[in-house]
Amino acid sequence: MKALSAFSREELLAFEQATAKQYEEFLAQKLSIDMSRGKPCTQQLNLSDSILDNVNTETGFKSANGTECRNYGIPAGIDECRQLFADILEVKPENIIVGGNSSLNLMFDYVAQCMLKGPTGEKGWAFEDEVIFLCPAPGYDRHFSICEYLGIKMVNVPMLATGPDMDVVEELVKNPKVKGLFCVPKYSNPMGITFSDETVERFAKLKPAAKDFRVIWDNAYCIHDLYEESDKLLNILTEAAKYGNEDTFVVFTSTSKITYPGSGVSAIAASTNNIKAIMARLTMQTIGHDKINQLRHARAFKDMKALNEHMQRHAEILRPKFEAVLDILSKELGELNIASWNKPRGGYFISLDVEVGSAKYVGKLCKDAGLVLTTVGATFPYGVDPEDKNIRIAPTFPPVDELKICCSLLCCCVKLAAARELLGKTE
Amino acid sequence: MKALSAFSREELLAFEQATAKQYEEFLAQKLSIDMSRGKPCTQQLNLSDSILDNVNTETGFKSANGTECRNYGIPAGIDECRQLFADILEVKPENIIVGGNSSLNLMFDYVAQCMLKGPTGEKGWAFEDEVIFLCPAPGYDRHFSICEYLGIKMVNVPMLATGPDMDVVEELVKNPKVKGLFCVPKYSNPMGITFSDETVERFAKLKPAAKDFRVIWDNAYCIHDLYEESDKLLNILTEAAKYGNEDTFVVFTSTSKITYPGSGVSAIAASTNNIKAIMARLTMQTIGHDKINQLRHARAFKDMKALNEHMQRHAEILRPKFEAVLDILSKELGELNIASWNKPRGGYFISLDVEVGSAKYVGKLCKDAGLVLTTVGATFPYGVDPEDKNIRIAPTFPPVDELKICCSLLCCCVKLAAARELLGKTE
Repeated sequence: MKALSAFSREELLAFEQATAKQYEEFLAQKLSIDMSRGKPCTQQLNLSDSILDNVNTETGFKSANGTECRNYGIPAGIDECRQLFADILEVKPENIIVGGNSSLNLMFDYVAQCMLKGPTGEKGWAFEDEVIFLCPAPGYDRHFSICEYLGIKMVNVPMLATGPDMDVVEELVKNPKVKGLFCVPKYSNPMGITFSDETVERFAKLKPAAKDFRVIWDNAYCIHDLYEESDKLLNILTEAAKYGNEDTFVVFTSTSKITYPGSGVSAIAASTNNIKAIMARLTMQTIGHDKINQLRHARAFKDMKALNEHMQRHAEILRPKFEAVLDILSKELGELNIASWNKPRGGYFISLDVEVGSAKYVGKLCKDAGLVLTTVGATFPYGVDPEDKNIRIAPTFPPVDELKICCSLLCCCVKLAAARELLGKTE
Repeated sequence: MKALSAFSREELLAFEQATAKQYEEFLAQKLSIDMSRGKPCTQQLNLSDSILDNVNTETGFKSANGTECRNYGIPAGIDECRQLFADILEVKPENIIVGGNSSLNLMFDYVAQCMLKGPTGEKGWAFEDEVIFLCPAPGYDRHFSICEYLGIKMVNVPMLATGPDMDVVEELVKNPKVKGLFCVPKYSNPMGITFSDETVERFAKLKPAAKDFRVIWDNAYCIHDLYEESDKLLNILTEAAKYGNEDTFVVFTSTSKITYPGSGVSAIAASTNNIKAIMARLTMQTIGHDKINQLRHARAFKDMKALNEHMQRHAEILRPKFEAVLDILSKELGELNIASWNKPRGGYFISLDVEVGSAKYVGKLCKDAGLVLTTVGATFPYGVDPEDKNIRIAPTFPPVDELKICCSLLCCCVKLAAARELLGKTE
């Protein structure tokens, strides 16, 4: 096999015909598979079922310091759950607020608070002429949705193998209208890359024109490694503190992909100033989050050893899935030079870049054959991939056998699109 | 015994001395009791412990229609939980959104949404010169806190035995800056009164100058009756629909005082238009609330019969507490004519009005003797009771014996304050 661009017109025609025939065979299978979201699979969910037995009349309802977890109160979360997230995010427990079941909700609320009141309560961003967020892209569609819903203008920043292009970030933050940035620093969604030490250090040193600039550091996959030798991410709060910039970063995470999506526990890690400003809102918003669920989680993971062992069981389920996808991509597309992809060592996604201008067409071909991918374009602000080339693969949910079919179909569609594009050009 | 105002100066001096001696005896007891919040007591919490066994590997994790409750999704809530709240609030399930653990959180988020985007997304209230909310008072301090935090100007509306003074409401809504009103229509916090049919009908007919005016109808105590013969509240959504005003009202409730405060389930009932506008925000804010907890609750209360039986068990615990307080108030203050109170047939509070200008002093006397009441003034906007006369009694949490001591101490302080006030006047 050689690069598709090196095929003669005859070879290309034959390749297109063979691939079209293969595609017809997929059509005949009448598949109906949804691979659009980064959802844990049933086998993963089963790993956490024992946490439901952690709080009941036999175990008791009191936290370690005697707090009755069934009643009102403790808006920042019970001590042992703050400690759990302090351990996960490598900060002090007093710099942790434990939330409800969704870190997305915490992020939305934080940005909404900034819009109405500003990060520290002086003046809401919404009352300025224009609010701009920098959006390293491809990125997480739900981050972009929050900005769009709140009327925040989004400006793309290219993602490199080391993280966001910091030359671009450093330049753009000179504009005082630029108020923030969303990012996933470890096993990024969808690229699966981890910000390099240099990237984190350049973030830590940032001196934006807007004094109320905030980075939403969505560390969703902080302990979600596939291999023992994991990516290492510098601690942004520690690094930023070296330059007096600890207020610039607000860190979010959750147990959605540790225990249950939807019935886990979320958390914020932030500087003393930011914790104070967030608590000023939170104590108006609620009398407290679900402490019984906090207790369930704290009792399940008494130390990082217990948590790491649990995460290894997730990895054992996910590793074969990621490897199956990478294996098929490599076999089917490896030498044709019509696509590129990352090999993530953790997280929930594999990002596939196809020929410029053909991602939407690939998405359509997949959909017509019964495979729903993440909407093409969704990994970019406003749902528009300027080069129309990025496809997000979410390999976690389908069983391996189904996943292999999905991935073979996807490769077939990528080849078909590339061949037709080249044939169009040579006509 | 006769009215204190009819006492001679000598009688009054003797009364003050006797009461002061009684107060000294309370001081000597070195009490330390917190009766500040409407918290269920331990015995009430115990009633719900069996719900924790409702979802586990044995019972399964799927909702009636087969939805996997451990995974992401279903932002409006699982069908059977929407049905549960539809039954409670007497609306259709499609007019229900099930939330997280806190209806306060739902209310805060709703008003914050109105501030940023307006109730239906045209224009945020925050971008107008001034936003005013009408505040029937005495009322729930946390409603007032939300307004204050969000920069909404509060205007007091007197509470009558029939609900808010609707003459005042109808007059004030002619001002287009008046955008909303918070209220607790059944067993109101703190008065324990239920809006009369006429009050609800006048609400339903309201034609405020502001087209985006909204009433936050906090039906927190909708099924929280103490007696079989309960107060009846007209259904505001049904009544309002008769006048095409169904979009004016958004109804909130929760199971915080049905199962666990902090680990219950909350809900919104609203018109089709309002549900649509709320879902537009909610689907940006979260992928879904805690469906396992929804399933726990739906399985616990399969029909209204099961729910009503459960609420009767709460009533059996609470009735003696309310009656003990009312009994002591009646015995100690009944004929002195220095205080008045309601006799609620449900809810969580008894509202005590003492002599004008003496509530703070009574609160201080109680505090000095080790009894913490709800901060005097907190039942009014900005924490200022203009007549300084309202005291909120929260009888649910302390055991009956302790409650009796609290209430005797409170009566002692009320008498002492009244006697000293009169003595001051006669000097």
